[in-house]
Amino acid sequence: MTYELYYWPGIQGRGEFVRLALEEAAAPYVDIALVPERKGGGAPAMLAVLGNPKLSHPPFAPPFLKARRLLIGQTANILLFLGDRLHLAPRTEGGRLWTHQLQLTIADFVVEIHDTHHPLGPLRYYEEQKREAKRRSEEFRAQRMPKFLGYFERVARSNSRRTPWMVGSRISYVDLSIAQVVAGLRYAFPQASQQALRSCPRLRALHDEVFGRPRIRSYVASGRRLAFNNDDAFRCYPELDD
Amino acid sequence: MTYELYYWPGIQGRGEFVRLALEEAAAPYVDIALVPERKGGGAPAMLAVLGNPKLSHPPFAPPFLKARRLLIGQTANILLFLGDRLHLAPRTEGGRLWTHQLQLTIADFVVEIHDTHHPLGPLRYYEEQKREAKRRSEEFRAQRMPKFLGYFERVARSNSRRTPWMVGSRISYVDLSIAQVVAGLRYAFPQASQQALRSCPRLRALHDEVFGRPRIRSYVASGRRLAFNNDDAFRCYPELDD
Repeated sequence: MTYELYYWPGIQGRGEFVRLALEEAAAPYVDIALVPERKGGGAPAMLAVLGNPKLSHPPFAPPFLKARRLLIGQTANILLFLGDRLHLAPRTEGGRLWTHQLQLTIADFVVEIHDTHHPLGPLRYYEEQKREAKRRSEEFRAQRMPKFLGYFERVARSNSRRTPWMVGSRISYVDLSIAQVVAGLRYAFPQASQQALRSCPRLRALHDEVFGRPRIRSYVASGRRLAFNNDDAFRCYPELDD
Repeated sequence: MTYELYYWPGIQGRGEFVRLALEEAAAPYVDIALVPERKGGGAPAMLAVLGNPKLSHPPFAPPFLKARRLLIGQTANILLFLGDRLHLAPRTEGGRLWTHQLQLTIADFVVEIHDTHHPLGPLRYYEEQKREAKRRSEEFRAQRMPKFLGYFERVARSNSRRTPWMVGSRISYVDLSIAQVVAGLRYAFPQASQQALRSCPRLRALHDEVFGRPRIRSYVASGRRLAFNNDDAFRCYPELDD
């Protein structure tokens, strides 16, 4: 079976957390964002699904994943599903819930990262809320980013298995997502993230482990992984890092 | 077995989504927020768990639930767990994922509701961000609240079973959470929510069904359900509803 991933073209966004899982597992998938519109892909294909009035399980927003007859939305929910299928999560009930709990905390963190440049809401342009973004980013840099990173560092350290991973003895989707967040923070807040990561040696090592994995390396080298850019959740505005 | 629910005392907050599930299922539980501090409850008991350096699965924030040896954090994750145990979710893989997907969309909605009064971040007081809250609330009232409510109304309508419920033929934790959101919006935005709910007859009926359930009625009558108040996620500031 071939999975179909639907997400906005042109950005990594929340879709990237799903892509990293599919790539690490070498799962067959079509990234609809990379299929040209004239071949039935791109944003129109995604919007056609979102707007289909006959769907019994309509997603609220992308990303969403088609897996045979299942249509699954919400990033963490997609990863919960793929974690089982692709062996990227523990098999015990407690282990599955714990892994998912961490992913939901990553999702909370990503909302706060996004809100540094959109404190007044998702619909106005950044240029209409620059002053407020500066104020929100101050609190984010000083308090929220260190708190989230410190939490994940503590979790990595408290994993009783002596591995680089967050959960248990094998790589999980949470490791891929944490590495992606570290990469994104380094793009968006080069100064503040460097300082916050100084006390997070486990997270720095985890980032390097993940992006050193053979399949992730060949994904990055393939050109399919887009570059970070300022239409995305992670945005590099120097005035918000200072 | 008796569940233990840990959450901040004095507010409904995210803990209330869990309480409604426990109450509807008549599950035995101790609400640690309601246990006096001198008897080992309240905020100190919760903070002691959060600060325990020996925990292998530390939660980032409340609410969290103790179920025998499991300690489960993240509201939607707790409900995923309880949905299976308390028969408040479908049993098929597709049904479980769809129910959870809706709960995660409710969680996104609750973040946006909270951010109407805290656009500059969770740590500053409302009084320090009143002007920004007014701007964020405009977008919320005009665009975001109608979009989320319209989505959930569409989902309720597209349920092929002819029931009042969002998912399948029986009540689920999502129904309880939607009813709670409708109640909260009516408290926080009496004018704007009335207008937005005019085109959502299914959600209005769902609210009445849920709060008419015998066990939910006796929970409300017991005094254990706290009143909405302005330390909570749903806050009534008339200047944000106008």
